[in-house]
Amino acid sequence: MSDAPPPGRQEQERSRVTRQRLMEAAIGALSELGWAGSTMTVIAERAGVSRGACQHHFPTRGDLVAAAVEYVGHQQVEELSRRAARLPADVRRTESILHMLAGFYTQPLFAAAAQLWVAASADAELRAQLLPVEAKVGREVHRLTVALLGVDDREPETRELVQATLDLIRGLGLANLLRDDSARRKKILHRWALTLEDALRSRRGRKAGD
Amino acid sequence: MSDAPPPGRQEQERSRVTRQRLMEAAIGALSELGWAGSTMTVIAERAGVSRGACQHHFPTRGDLVAAAVEYVGHQQVEELSRRAARLPADVRRTESILHMLAGFYTQPLFAAAAQLWVAASADAELRAQLLPVEAKVGREVHRLTVALLGVDDREPETRELVQATLDLIRGLGLANLLRDDSARRKKILHRWALTLEDALRSRRGRKAGD
Repeated sequence: MSDAPPPGRQEQERSRVTRQRLMEAAIGALSELGWAGSTMTVIAERAGVSRGACQHHFPTRGDLVAAAVEYVGHQQVEELSRRAARLPADVRRTESILHMLAGFYTQPLFAAAAQLWVAASADAELRAQLLPVEAKVGREVHRLTVALLGVDDREPETRELVQATLDLIRGLGLANLLRDDSARRKKILHRWALTLEDALRSRRGRKAGD
Repeated sequence: MSDAPPPGRQEQERSRVTRQRLMEAAIGALSELGWAGSTMTVIAERAGVSRGACQHHFPTRGDLVAAAVEYVGHQQVEELSRRAARLPADVRRTESILHMLAGFYTQPLFAAAAQLWVAASADAELRAQLLPVEAKVGREVHRLTVALLGVDDREPETRELVQATLDLIRGLGLANLLRDDSARRKKILHRWALTLEDALRSRRGRKAGD
């Protein structure tokens, strides 16, 4: 008797691992080489997978990168949730949350996503593949932010403040593409944390006084 | 007697016009075709300039795009200043200023700059050429924003709020690359304008009470 799974399961597992390696290699290639440099051949080589196997899993490069952004994005949101559970509930909690989110947008996944966004802005087919994925990852990050801040985003003002916060953080991610912008970013996030707390508090105050 | 300038001047003028056409063609090509598609040949063709003349003015593609971002960026900041002079000094002035600035970051120049940023994040030579130009255009926009808002950015809190505003607006520019994001952007800028006014006002209040 052996602990090895039955052959069908083994194959499924191998297939899952291959897909995963290809998706991770795609993100790495995009963030380092850009869209033009990230050919299927380059990605397959980085993943240690044959060109044929690559094409078997992902018929086009658009399929592969869309799946990669969704997979890696979802994984990282999960990782953020785990780390978030360990965040202190102290007075600087908002600032800690913003720093954690900014970490998400200064990683290779964001560099890869930025490469894809600009490539897609000049390529209608790629854009059609990326838009739903990007919206999905965006919604996951938005939901996580709402949960972390402990606010109710059915309220339009609150929802807009959360969206503004995430657009600000994506803007900071963009600024970080060309240089290490962490010193400036730290000050800006500190200032926005205080401003956001004030805005959310005055909103709650007004609501209580309704 | 004729009104034509002397031959030396004529040549200078022709050279200026050629450079200008090349720089504008470079921005157009970048925003539509991306970095990989914007070869010197493509840009020269779009400008109606021979490949040789193009190389005479700009030895490398990096030289051309760095000059183009600086030239077009400076021109657009000047244009913003002119339009700003006509902004009403009414109660929604902050929001009008933010909309004007957001207009700057949703134009072809921003799409071209985004193409260059991501290309430069994977290309050290291009990065070295772009960083000083990007910093210069960024400083011009910052200075204009400070002047329009009528605030004193020698004060760190105020400076950070202005920087956050511009990072937010660049984040909104990024979101607009893949789709027409204007409806969402309008709500976010409205909310940000109110929040920014509150923050600047409370800052002034505290200062008056020092």
